[in-house]
Amino acid sequence: MPKFTKLGFNSITASNRRNILDFIVEEKQINRSVIAKKVGLSIPSVMSITDDLIEKGIIYAVGKGESSGGKRPEMLAVVPDRFFFIGVDVGRTSVRVVILNNCRDVIYKESKLTESVEPEKLINQMTEMIMIGINELEVPYDRVVGVGVAMPGLIERGTGKVLFSPNFGWRDIPLQDELKKRLPFNVLVENANRALVIGEIKNMRPNSESCIIGVNLAYGIGSAIVFPNGLYYGASGTSGEIGHIIVENHGSYCSCGNYGCIESIASGEAIARQARIAIENKIQTSIVDKCNGDLTKLDARMVFDAAKEGDSLAESIIKKSADYIGKGLAIAINMLDPEQIILCGGLTLNGDFFIDMIRKSVFKYQMRYAGRNVKIVVGKSGEFATAIGGAWIIVNNIDYLSDD
Amino acid sequence: MPKFTKLGFNSITASNRRNILDFIVEEKQINRSVIAKKVGLSIPSVMSITDDLIEKGIIYAVGKGESSGGKRPEMLAVVPDRFFFIGVDVGRTSVRVVILNNCRDVIYKESKLTESVEPEKLINQMTEMIMIGINELEVPYDRVVGVGVAMPGLIERGTGKVLFSPNFGWRDIPLQDELKKRLPFNVLVENANRALVIGEIKNMRPNSESCIIGVNLAYGIGSAIVFPNGLYYGASGTSGEIGHIIVENHGSYCSCGNYGCIESIASGEAIARQARIAIENKIQTSIVDKCNGDLTKLDARMVFDAAKEGDSLAESIIKKSADYIGKGLAIAINMLDPEQIILCGGLTLNGDFFIDMIRKSVFKYQMRYAGRNVKIVVGKSGEFATAIGGAWIIVNNIDYLSDD
Repeated sequence: MPKFTKLGFNSITASNRRNILDFIVEEKQINRSVIAKKVGLSIPSVMSITDDLIEKGIIYAVGKGESSGGKRPEMLAVVPDRFFFIGVDVGRTSVRVVILNNCRDVIYKESKLTESVEPEKLINQMTEMIMIGINELEVPYDRVVGVGVAMPGLIERGTGKVLFSPNFGWRDIPLQDELKKRLPFNVLVENANRALVIGEIKNMRPNSESCIIGVNLAYGIGSAIVFPNGLYYGASGTSGEIGHIIVENHGSYCSCGNYGCIESIASGEAIARQARIAIENKIQTSIVDKCNGDLTKLDARMVFDAAKEGDSLAESIIKKSADYIGKGLAIAINMLDPEQIILCGGLTLNGDFFIDMIRKSVFKYQMRYAGRNVKIVVGKSGEFATAIGGAWIIVNNIDYLSDD
Repeated sequence: MPKFTKLGFNSITASNRRNILDFIVEEKQINRSVIAKKVGLSIPSVMSITDDLIEKGIIYAVGKGESSGGKRPEMLAVVPDRFFFIGVDVGRTSVRVVILNNCRDVIYKESKLTESVEPEKLINQMTEMIMIGINELEVPYDRVVGVGVAMPGLIERGTGKVLFSPNFGWRDIPLQDELKKRLPFNVLVENANRALVIGEIKNMRPNSESCIIGVNLAYGIGSAIVFPNGLYYGASGTSGEIGHIIVENHGSYCSCGNYGCIESIASGEAIARQARIAIENKIQTSIVDKCNGDLTKLDARMVFDAAKEGDSLAESIIKKSADYIGKGLAIAINMLDPEQIILCGGLTLNGDFFIDMIRKSVFKYQMRYAGRNVKIVVGKSGEFATAIGGAWIIVNNIDYLSDD
């Protein structure tokens, strides 16, 4: 399989420029001959590109490094405040905004309750939160490369229109255009699962010939498939619907219209629902105490907490959830034999015992000789992972290093 | 997503040369200016490449074509006997050999019963069948580009070693090396499902951003995933194991060691087995007559024939098979949102009613808004499809147009 080129960087120069900057970001301080070795270019080619990046104020010469025999080489580093990338996570309960600087470090994060799911109101809330961040940091507008918005649902590629978002009840909302009207920045809207996974992976290793699957285990269950050349969308943009694989022939009703989907049994919503129904049916459980008897307040976290304390109802619900998630992952492994599966989302924050249960289930359902190289890991970016992913959608898709 | 380059053609010249030849093969007769438009090159560049191909005897000037205003253009065509590509399908019951000429037309096919699954004997049978074909056609050895062997099981990439083939009971058999020792030709061994699907797809449209999934519905059930840049293998080479998705919690034992896999319920082997067990349990059915009461002779085709005649046991077995195959395809659609699913293999030769049942099942299990652009089609290459695919593995992976 040929090496892949990066998304959106069509010229070889643009791609080399980008590879060099990525390497400097990664290494923090590095000299030109190490860069040349790493990116496979001649030292004069590297010099021409780094000189250009210095002239544009994107990197700078930070001083002399250690000698490896000859004279001490000039070390290069990224100018942190030359560019900024904004990420927005549009959640059903919270809206989160992060700002990354040119080193791709998170220098700002803010989370607020979602005020309304009414499009106009929610778009205004996003706009306001973004501008508060930008103004608080006193970022000059022309240094903002763009705003990446992570939105749950089916997003039309290119236009960033929300075709369908069941959690928000949205259909055909031109979110990207509406934000562009209100903001002095470039805007890209991406599906939240895809943004999340990109945020966890950041720069995919370009020598991989396989894929990485990121699975978002949260209120719902979604996933994204990333190949070395970037996100995989599919013929109609709906790839990655691991949560809507049907695993029970006569299972619970699912928001997608089918019955017995993984999501309808194993998601955060499903965990809470199953506990609620059991309590209504007078099953003894300590979950009741966790929500002070108010079943409308009952959430998945309370079920996890009760399970950790040995509550048998909670244990059985969590065990079933892990079993079905593992079944979904085993299917993904049988089909795609990925290099890595990254588990992300709220449910993964409940401790290793849940992840261990999932691994056991994967082992049970996976074909014996399939996917022997797959690693199942847990995402590291925490509560702001999806917003960070939104910012990375901008980092990865806008060729901000080229001349205008 | 960037355009993909073809497998194995690393230089731009090699890739242009190949694109031009592919286009001439496709069009049968074509002039240089149409080629230039099609492949996006200047006429002088096309001339330089076509002159070189003419000089090497790969194409020739066939005469003058229709004028489109100016003087009548010279038409180019492929020299049919300049190159030959051999494909071998190593089946549990039959070994099939095909030979394709430089126009990629099948000019030879032969099928013989598999004499033995003992590696040495089977390798000798393949060798003999290949040499009989070559000698019968009087093909000069130096015009044979290579032999592509389609082998069921897990094949190590690069070496063509059979790591594991349950149907043959093979482990770690260096099939590619052994054939190379015996034959004066280049040899590539590929997994049979992958070869089959490549044979059905042949040249993938290079503008596609999605994938095609080919599913082999036969004695077993396997699949292959093809992206515009070629076959997708996965991190350990085991992608496409759609037959080993578990769909029944307490289902039948499967050859893979698990229970309730799609293959254990829906494959040709499973269809025959279920009929056999039912008959042993004294269920009334016309299938008994089809095998003249000899249950060891009972095969899936007989069950299909009985189902077509309204036999209720046969109908229920076939319906269940279609239901589970549809479930597997729906899972593949939810995950990968492919452009096309090509159904191939023996089971697809039993008529439209089975394919219609599969389509209905897909619709039932598929997520409502997922995979709206997927087309489910049936392969066209018939009994020799896998052997033809073997030959295409050679066409696609060996850069036979370059100078030595």
